Amino acid sequence: MCAMTLFAVENFPLVHPGDNLAALVVDRLTRMGEQLEPGDILVIAQKIVSKAEGRVIDLATVTPTSAAQELATLTGKDSPTVQVILDDSNEVIRALPGLLITEQRSGWICAHAGVDRSNVDGGSALALLPADADASAAQIREEIAALTGVAPGVLINDSHGRPWRQGTVGVCIGCAGLPPVWNQRGLHDLYGYELTGSEECIADELTGAASLIMGQSDEARPVVVIRGYPLPPVGPAPAKSIQRPKERDAFR
Amino acid sequence: MCAMTLFAVENFPLVHPGDNLAALVVDRLTRMGEQLEPGDILVIAQKIVSKAEGRVIDLATVTPTSAAQELATLTGKDSPTVQVILDDSNEVIRALPGLLITEQRSGWICAHAGVDRSNVDGGSALALLPADADASAAQIREEIAALTGVAPGVLINDSHGRPWRQGTVGVCIGCAGLPPVWNQRGLHDLYGYELTGSEECIADELTGAASLIMGQSDEARPVVVIRGYPLPPVGPAPAKSIQRPKERDAFR
Repeated sequence: MCAMTLFAVENFPLVHPGDNLAALVVDRLTRMGEQLEPGDILVIAQKIVSKAEGRVIDLATVTPTSAAQELATLTGKDSPTVQVILDDSNEVIRALPGLLITEQRSGWICAHAGVDRSNVDGGSALALLPADADASAAQIREEIAALTGVAPGVLINDSHGRPWRQGTVGVCIGCAGLPPVWNQRGLHDLYGYELTGSEECIADELTGAASLIMGQSDEARPVVVIRGYPLPPVGPAPAKSIQRPKERDAFR
Repeated sequence: MCAMTLFAVENFPLVHPGDNLAALVVDRLTRMGEQLEPGDILVIAQKIVSKAEGRVIDLATVTPTSAAQELATLTGKDSPTVQVILDDSNEVIRALPGLLITEQRSGWICAHAGVDRSNVDGGSALALLPADADASAAQIREEIAALTGVAPGVLINDSHGRPWRQGTVGVCIGCAGLPPVWNQRGLHDLYGYELTGSEECIADELTGAASLIMGQSDEARPVVVIRGYPLPPVGPAPAKSIQRPKERDAFR
């Protein structure tokens, strides 16, 4: 039977700067009586990666510039938060009342540069995206392999809104050990017709699936194991390969 | 353990106009020794819904207008295909060399109005999106409930590209029996901070997950069962509730 299972790593503790996520994952899996199997994919919430890496800013320490104050007035956000967003962005994509979308320093286009105050410390601090989530994913993968002998695929996910569609979905911002985008051009369909436009972002589908288990509020399930997904016969690549080149993007 | 399983309905036959999908699903599940359980969600590929409903057009029967010919020249597509796309669209959103994005008649913004020739009949015919995929989902749900006594959630998925991100992901275009978007505003995070902006499109995450099992080419797995997803405590709604109102969309 072609089946895939997702389960949460249970009783994951609150994460603090300096914590070793690989060791925490392996410890909590062991306590569950579980161990990683070849082909397993770990999806890890951006928020705990950011916190372990100390990518947290206390809003009380931020002095907004006049540019941030103007953008805060336009968008209806508070100006220290806007300053933090601008400091971690390459450019503003859209700024409207209630809306601030930027290209974050790593190239992700999303609301607020991914900066967010939920599940940080109660509202007075903000978490930024990891400085290099692909590097974070690769490091976690290597450390888990050293601890267990199994090198899982590692995906780091964040919740992004989309044009045209309501609600956020989990998407991939860091990847190690698998190809985020699977180009199926050249494969044939059931009728022998050659597929010309089929390129599937499996990393976003995997991280979206894991988000269903993680939840967004007080579920305390920031790490999910995906087992049984048949990885495509393509080499691994970083999540940055998901980013559509600016000159080939009709919506920026 | 918080776990979710996805499995494909095995040995699903090729679908033809007039076929009863509910009966096919129940029959194939029975042959697998499986039966639906309360809380199960069925994800059904748009392509087989369209084919069962006869939403297929033979390209040889299409006479392109001059508007379709001009758009075909601009985008590099063939003019009969462009005519079929225009006939099933409310408006053109972007037309550039290699790119034609429209608002399909049901309100979905996607490439080619969702019109596609893979897995139709070898390349000479096109499948349109279902005329009303929410109604299709509701009908399949009712018919399965009548046959089995269990009314599963039913989602119809299609593969859509996205601005900013490479590759398609499975998204929901038809929904019955569950809420596609879960508004979590008012819930609290692990630190007691009230979530103000959390609205998750669980339908797109569920259909994206199912797409990983379905595949895009010759896998012949157009129906996937999702078991163990804890549905949110919110009433059902149609997939159309995913559509962002035009006046609140900054990217059209």
